Formats: sequence, C-alpha cells, structure tokens
Amino acid sequence: MKMSVLALLAGVAAAPAVIADSSTLAYPEGYRSWDHVKSMVINKGHPLFDAVGGIHNTYGNPKAIKGYQANKRFADGSVIVFDLFEAVDQDNTVSEGSRKAVVVMAKDSKKYRDTNGWGYQVFDPKTKKATIDAKAAADCHACHVQVKDQDYVFSVWRP
Amino acid sequence: MKMSVLALLAGVAAAPAVIADSSTLAYPEGYRSWDHVKSMVINKGHPLFDAVGGIHNTYGNPKAIKGYQANKRFADGSVIVFDLFEAVDQDNTVSEGSRKAVVVMAKDSKKYRDTNGWGYQVFDPKTKKATIDAKAAADCHACHVQVKDQDYVFSVWRP
Repeated sequence: MKMSVLALLAGVAAAPAVIADSSTLAYPEGYRSWDHVKSMVINKGHPLFDAVGGIHNTYGNPKAIKGYQANKRFADGSVIVFDLFEAVDQDNTVSEGSRKAVVVMAKDSKKYRDTNGWGYQVFDPKTKKATIDAKAAADCHACHVQVKDQDYVFSVWRP
Repeated sequence: MKMSVLALLAGVAAAPAVIADSSTLAYPEGYRSWDHVKSMVINKGHPLFDAVGGIHNTYGNPKAIKGYQANKRFADGSVIVFDLFEAVDQDNTVSEGSRKAVVVMAKDSKKYRDTNGWGYQVFDPKTKKATIDAKAAADCHACHVQVKDQDYVFSVWRP
C-alpha cells in the first residue's frame, strides 16, 4: 500500500489538542463472526482512495446490528468494523488481496462525547496494534459528521 | 438484469435426464446472520458474467464454516450462499445495487450423490422460490468440478 490508511491517518496527527481518547478502543476480537452489513469497492479517483481504497467488508456486533435496524440509532457498546483489503483487479474480477487495515468505530457516549459518542481506531491487521491518535480519530469523525442523520454511520442496513 | 442467472440457468434446462433432485433444496432462511466468507465482483468480459455477474457476498452455515477451515472438506448439512447483487459502478466506487439472486449449494452425499454430494439451487430474491431444475443444477456442478480438490467449492476461507 503506497499511501496507506495507516500512514495517511497517522500523518494528519499534527495538532496537539487531545479531543477524544481512542487509545482505549480495543481490537475487535471475533469480528469475523459478527453479522456482515455490506461490501463495497473504493477505486482510484475517489476522495477517500488514499485513506481507505480497496475492497471492504463491514461488520457489526449485535448491538450495532440492532442500531442499523432501529432507526439508525446506535446504543453504547455498538462496534462497527470496516475490514479493508487490497482490491485485486484481474481477469474481469475484483477480489480481495491482502488485508490493509481493520478500521473500527465504537460507541461510548461518555468516553467519546467530543465526537458525538463515537471513537475511531485503525488497527494494523498483522500486529493488531492501534495506529492512530486522538487527533486523527477526530479527523475520522469530521468526515462522518456528514451522515449525522444516520448517527454518523455511512453504511446502511439492507436485509 | 438483461441476461440474469435465473434466465440463463433456466434456459439450459433442455435435456430430459433427471440427475439430482435440487427441487428439495430449501431456501436458506437466516443466512444473513451466517458467517461471511468473502466478497468479490465479477465484471463484464468474465465467462460467468451472464450467469453471476455483479457483486456477491459468500456466507456459510456453521457446518460449512467448519468445512472451509478443515481441509476444505464439507460435512453433510453444509450450506453455502452466494448472495448476488447488481454492481453499481459510480463515482469511483462499486457498491451493491438490487439483489439479483440467492444462489445456494448444499451438501448431502445421498440426495446429491450424482453431483458428488452437492445440490445447487438459485432462488428468486423476492419470492424465495427455486428457479432451476435438476439439469441446470448439474450444469452448475459441471463447472464446480474444476475445483474438485477443494471439495467443489470455489471460495476459500481466510481469517
């Protein structure tokens, strides 16, 4: 990954202000058995390509799935995973290559009150270590604010 | 869908020989909560585009997931769903459009012994009704034979 989500999001962490404590957001163990929400490909030319380009699968823990299904309002404890892979475009197919990042948003109205209750973290898929700081997490949220009416979650449930 | 999987697979059902009874293969109720295996896009130009072109998400019931993880050998009762959507290519993203078909393969060594234990069915996503007959199911299998060493299953598990 030339300009990875890890590098990109770490790179924007310039300002000193600590806005929300995403360092306490845990790696989402077991998420591969959570319900799958949807999948999507983000290609070159998309404004988020450098950050999250590739093919991604979105999963939600049971609380998040309830949130998706209940008026797009997520209870504390909801965790959503954006499982990002290289998109391998070959022989008229686009398939999953190497995992690039495990991107997480987690709801905790108190801990993340400065970002409307959502904490964000990007985990290195090999080490499972957190890679972004509070400022970068706030930058995640600055983009999610555009879907405020969906409780800051871009993905939408479909049966 | 111009030349849908439903139309295409129904269209090949010309020969009278009844090879396996796929009419008894049930709609996989609840599969949206099964473990997600992987996702992929099949584009124009791919030999299977007319049959299963679009973006698909593959799911397995608990027995199938064990099969994926255990030497690619699937026990009777394993059910795999290939959940097929229109691929909407727009603004440098490829996202899920309308659901085109719910394609299923199910393992039952006795019932489907003439197709190496696998039954195949394509369900209309709206009516949940089966749309292919035994001959078309055998045609599915004729293609799956190329992955005999993976117990006739194309998709491969990754954590």
